Amino acid sequence: MKIIGELINGTRAKPKEAIAQRNADYIADLARRQDEAGAHFIDANPGTSGEAEITDMLWLAETIQAVTDKPLSFDSPSVRAIEAALDAYTGSALPLINSITYEREKLDALIGLVAETGANVVALAMGDDGMPSDSLQREETALRLIDTLTARGIDPERIYLDPVIVPLGTCHETGTHVLSAVRAIRRQRPECHITCGLSNISYGLPHRKLVNRVFLVQCMVAGLDSAIIDPLEPGIMAELAAAEALLGNDEWCMNYITLSRSGALD
Amino acid sequence: MKIIGELINGTRAKPKEAIAQRNADYIADLARRQDEAGAHFIDANPGTSGEAEITDMLWLAETIQAVTDKPLSFDSPSVRAIEAALDAYTGSALPLINSITYEREKLDALIGLVAETGANVVALAMGDDGMPSDSLQREETALRLIDTLTARGIDPERIYLDPVIVPLGTCHETGTHVLSAVRAIRRQRPECHITCGLSNISYGLPHRKLVNRVFLVQCMVAGLDSAIIDPLEPGIMAELAAAEALLGNDEWCMNYITLSRSGALD
Repeated sequence: MKIIGELINGTRAKPKEAIAQRNADYIADLARRQDEAGAHFIDANPGTSGEAEITDMLWLAETIQAVTDKPLSFDSPSVRAIEAALDAYTGSALPLINSITYEREKLDALIGLVAETGANVVALAMGDDGMPSDSLQREETALRLIDTLTARGIDPERIYLDPVIVPLGTCHETGTHVLSAVRAIRRQRPECHITCGLSNISYGLPHRKLVNRVFLVQCMVAGLDSAIIDPLEPGIMAELAAAEALLGNDEWCMNYITLSRSGALD
Repeated sequence: MKIIGELINGTRAKPKEAIAQRNADYIADLARRQDEAGAHFIDANPGTSGEAEITDMLWLAETIQAVTDKPLSFDSPSVRAIEAALDAYTGSALPLINSITYEREKLDALIGLVAETGANVVALAMGDDGMPSDSLQREETALRLIDTLTARGIDPERIYLDPVIVPLGTCHETGTHVLSAVRAIRRQRPECHITCGLSNISYGLPHRKLVNRVFLVQCMVAGLDSAIIDPLEPGIMAELAAAEALLGNDEWCMNYITLSRSGALD
């Protein structure tokens, strides 16, 4: 399970303030704790715009790289911010570009960067006609996007397909649509990773953490093998460990038992 | 989701004592609380043997029926105890016989009772050669057992197929074996219920409740629509409510939101 740690996100109040004030200690601490909690990528989302998005992204990347060897996930709607971050990136593990979509303009602008730099990429199953409305639309856009990327020589193992999560509160079939799409994509493109921006599912509902962790467990059964989550939330990490053991990915439950002994499942 | 409340079980210390002492208050309280928590059947397992199994079962049935209209689940390895309980049963909703297997002797002894009384039945996918060792063996025994029952005129909707849960700690592929079997049985016999004695999965592992609730969520994705559980455990009931909403079985998340407001998800 590849975890993309989502906490350094300038659209949230505290990180926003830390970015604005260049509070490196705060950002470094978030990066370090997500690393220690098992994140495979540390997401960096400046959450600003224009020139600030570029300078903020560069500062975030520098600040995060100072405290962790984990690869970064450059999360921005700005192609220029991603480009600048890739240029300045000094990590040894290949970073993640978050994200590319099947929207023609963005696709054209980013696909070359992904191909040239060897970076990993979150591929969001969304086309020029906006959010997918059902399972089939997710599946079709996902397959088209994956095939477009691999046709450019991008190894499927570098692709993190995101089937697009919309809030369950706005459409009570969202869960089943996503699960069907994940199942279909996993069957047809077994080498790709499948990830998702998990917490969108619970937007507007009470007890959001409960909905998030249950949906993560469900999606893993369907074939999801990555998620963009808060690795510092003990509830979701505990369920993830149990789910991995139950899916046969933890021989003799060694990891599960080790976590239990460490108190991480309490 | 059909819940079979498992708490009145004479193999556990406190119910065993209550049965031995004919402590009707204790048993009635367990029955009432499971009913209120949403159990569809109240399991009665005397956990004794010989003549005592029969008299204990009759006492349990009488004690439980005095406080709830929910149908009973007669849970005993003794055909005579089940027979006596069915004879004495006065409830209006059809009870559940727990359980029949594909072991020739037990099958022959019970199938007539199920057919004649119109009772529901837990059909355990286990044959004369003992516990199933993989997914295919579960699937084959399950289909054979279901077909044998329906050939005797037993409506598939009265059948609660149990794919046999063995502890994950003894075989790290148990989870995937059961999930595959549930998926295969659901696809081929869509009218049957699929249930399981859930807590066996976590036997010998730490943080058992965590393993149980995660496995329940996983099995529901594969097609499980019933479970033998402790409905008084708030953690599992909360995840069940979220899972139902995410699987599209709770329009506008009304049940989920109602439970949240009542404090049941805290």
